[in-house]
Amino acid sequence: MRCIKIGEPNINSAFIPLNPTCYIRKGSEVDTPLSYYLFSHEEEHMEEGIIDKFQKQREELNRLVMEYAGQGTKRFYSLDSQAYREGALSCKTKELLGLVASFVLRCDDCIKYHIIRCFVEGVSDQELEEALLIGLVVGGTITIPHQRRAIQAWHELKQKDK
Amino acid sequence: MRCIKIGEPNINSAFIPLNPTCYIRKGSEVDTPLSYYLFSHEEEHMEEGIIDKFQKQREELNRLVMEYAGQGTKRFYSLDSQAYREGALSCKTKELLGLVASFVLRCDDCIKYHIIRCFVEGVSDQELEEALLIGLVVGGTITIPHQRRAIQAWHELKQKDK
Amino acid sequence: MRCIKIGEPNINSAFIPLNPTCYIRKGSEVDTPLSYYLFSHEEEHMEEGIIDKFQKQREELNRLVMEYAGQGTKRFYSLDSQAYREGALSCKTKELLGLVASFVLRCDDCIKYHIIRCFVEGVSDQELEEALLIGLVVGGTITIPHQRRAIQAWHELKQKDK
Amino acid sequence: MRCIKIGEPNINSAFIPLNPTCYIRKGSEVDTPLSYYLFSHEEEHMEEGIIDKFQKQREELNRLVMEYAGQGTKRFYSLDSQAYREGALSCKTKELLGLVASFVLRCDDCIKYHIIRCFVEGVSDQELEEALLIGLVVGGTITIPHQRRAIQAWHELKQKDK
Amino acid sequence: MRCIKIGEPNINSAFIPLNPTCYIRKGSEVDTPLSYYLFSHEEEHMEEGIIDKFQKQREELNRLVMEYAGQGTKRFYSLDSQAYREGALSCKTKELLGLVASFVLRCDDCIKYHIIRCFVEGVSDQELEEALLIGLVVGGTITIPHQRRAIQAWHELKQKDK
Amino acid sequence: MRCIKIGEPNINSAFIPLNPTCYIRKGSEVDTPLSYYLFSHEEEHMEEGIIDKFQKQREELNRLVMEYAGQGTKRFYSLDSQAYREGALSCKTKELLGLVASFVLRCDDCIKYHIIRCFVEGVSDQELEEALLIGLVVGGTITIPHQRRAIQAWHELKQKDK
Repeated sequence: MRCIKIGEPNINSAFIPLNPTCYIRKGSEVDTPLSYYLFSHEEEHMEEGIIDKFQKQREELNRLVMEYAGQGTKRFYSLDSQAYREGALSCKTKELLGLVASFVLRCDDCIKYHIIRCFVEGVSDQELEEALLIGLVVGGTITIPHQRRAIQAWHELKQKDK
Repeated sequence: MRCIKIGEPNINSAFIPLNPTCYIRKGSEVDTPLSYYLFSHEEEHMEEGIIDKFQKQREELNRLVMEYAGQGTKRFYSLDSQAYREGALSCKTKELLGLVASFVLRCDDCIKYHIIRCFVEGVSDQELEEALLIGLVVGGTITIPHQRRAIQAWHELKQKDK
Repeated sequence: MRCIKIGEPNINSAFIPLNPTCYIRKGSEVDTPLSYYLFSHEEEHMEEGIIDKFQKQREELNRLVMEYAGQGTKRFYSLDSQAYREGALSCKTKELLGLVASFVLRCDDCIKYHIIRCFVEGVSDQELEEALLIGLVVGGTITIPHQRRAIQAWHELKQKDK
Repeated sequence: MRCIKIGEPNINSAFIPLNPTCYIRKGSEVDTPLSYYLFSHEEEHMEEGIIDKFQKQREELNRLVMEYAGQGTKRFYSLDSQAYREGALSCKTKELLGLVASFVLRCDDCIKYHIIRCFVEGVSDQELEEALLIGLVVGGTITIPHQRRAIQAWHELKQKDK
Repeated sequence: MRCIKIGEPNINSAFIPLNPTCYIRKGSEVDTPLSYYLFSHEEEHMEEGIIDKFQKQREELNRLVMEYAGQGTKRFYSLDSQAYREGALSCKTKELLGLVASFVLRCDDCIKYHIIRCFVEGVSDQELEEALLIGLVVGGTITIPHQRRAIQAWHELKQKDK
Repeated sequence: MRCIKIGEPNINSAFIPLNPTCYIRKGSEVDTPLSYYLFSHEEEHMEEGIIDKFQKQREELNRLVMEYAGQGTKRFYSLDSQAYREGALSCKTKELLGLVASFVLRCDDCIKYHIIRCFVEGVSDQELEEALLIGLVVGGTITIPHQRRAIQAWHELKQKDK
């Protein structure tokens, strides 16, 4: 199973992004119990990789954002979750859409987030390559440094998953 | 059948975008005979809509671009076609990716192009809505004017198709 | 009074943008009766300017967008309204923020929209000039064509208001 | 000689862009007499092309911008002129830099402006093609609609120049 | 008093951004004596936070930029300062405009700079939240990582200020 | 001679960017023997600077990208190389174009890459300053943090070259 350890169920965290069946976030509207562990505890003792570092920092800062957030900001985060839920399009397709959108807009954190989500949704190497090629062709060589870091994150996820 | 009249097979045109089964362009690499007519001749006499106007102008200017194009430019156009061909991901998914990429980068012509392609690939109203919602949420309200024009083009395609 | 005719109260319209005291939109959450007329009927017979044309097209396309809109899209539009409501910051300041954000992201329709809103909120020529200078300096000469069209719209509003 | 009629020397115009030897604008700092006519009066009676239309509209709106402009805006326009003056890099190279910058940022008006300036500076078809290829590759297919319109403007300039 | 230590008055520094009453930079045009200390020396021995690190690096690199800068670059920096000076709009409003412009254009350093300036101008938590919500809604979820870092910087400023 | 050590000729590396006479990359189309060393081995033992770090990381990640790359991605990288080859425009002019394009699109890695290439092509301080001024004026103050890092990289290259 493709999965990633995300720590104890975190009540205060705004996002719990790694539900393996579908996109789930904990916002004002979505309260989903979360009880799976995606990587074994043993792996916790490995050298911290870019994915872990990203996840930890993101969760920490999301908590801070929520301290300052008004109703509008909370609604926006909730709407963000809603957009990626299974519908006429599958979660997998939606995550690929989110990935390519983030890729052409060149936001490394957003790319990393969707790379993780795509991995969890079972996107294959070739599917990823084809999606990123569209991003590369639409967005031009200016996206190449982001492509490098996207592949680096993808590669790390695959190494961990072995 | 969802289809759009695109005129006589045009040898000089750089793009022949509306093959209903998959994305086909006429470039240095892809030479596909094209013999279907997507709207009946009768419809030609209707008031010219935004789709027709776009298609005509695009074809005309592509011809001019090709007059000035060197090998590099031609290869780039050819690579563009290649990126959208059926592979691990379907043509339909790839067109949705191209649409959302164009949407968040806010290029009306590119959006119109992919709206047509999505229509030809059989994307449903709800699938389109969900894909554009991702674009809207990722890209923000700054994309709204493009959403309006995307829906306008989509609506025109549907009216023509009745 | 600074105001703009926006036609009969329109139940189906997603946006009713020109409330002179504060930003009001008709969405799933905000249902505000609207009973003022911002320009007299006589002015309707004047040559249609860029503002009128923009308003009409925008309203028409918003209606179409709402026909296709799912819950997510409607929530997004509603959230957009919410963000500009009087709060710790005044409506006027918020509209200036919206204007400068639209300006540096270079979206003519968004700029036009906020130019109208700034006018209604009583922004002065000098305040506008100072806000646009910040946009110009932050965003560079690439914003100049948008500055031209922003000033053109502003000038038209002022001519109508005399 | 490559040149374009730009009307009577216009004291109030912020920009006088078509000096054939070097980039000249009329701002607070640069007051250059201008006495050449770039296309004969006969051509004025031809159908108005995209270049003429662009030049006329731009000049008209620049005049309006200057009515509202404070000292900061004027300085910014003046600095813009200064950046393109002959220096360690030639005017021609600088205009190519301005063109490619405008191209990847996808501003049609800015592109048109630099296309005219490149034409006046004696850029050849092949030089233009190579510069735009760099823009195309860096900026991706999202720039293609702008490439079409850039080539259209270039082609019109060449037709007029025959 | 809200303030931040910025070291000894620095004659060579291009920017002296933290005057608590209004925006002041040391450029070719603005030479303002600066004699206040914004955090006590004691705090210098605290662990270096993101604000300190940013300020130090920025000052150091500005000095290097000025070594290479020609007249045009210097004028540009000076114009940048001018745009934020008290005028028809207050310094505070201008800094919020600069913040939101930087936010939607997604430049972390620019955001950090304006976050500091907003803090010095006495912007409240709620005002900041409302301004950033406009940025978030206009710019979309692609701005969220920048929002996180903006709030992180703001939070650090508040902790230091206690 | 202006040059930079780039390690042993690397067969698997997608890019070998530092040929001092012209732009050379090792892709599917360009196989150029590479036998020069740009900095002496002694310098390897110096503290690693931003250029070295960038080059090493870039080469490493390019290798990973190529492991995952399909034909389309490889062609895109090859086309990228082709665009910068000597033609009607010199390599030097093309690198300046690539630099300014990267600068206004605000990609630090791309800027760093072209800064190195410009240095190798013999661009002078003043030429660099003039090119970046165009980028600064077109792109606005939002580019300033990138200007700082561009100058920092340039300065390091010059220090190494002494």
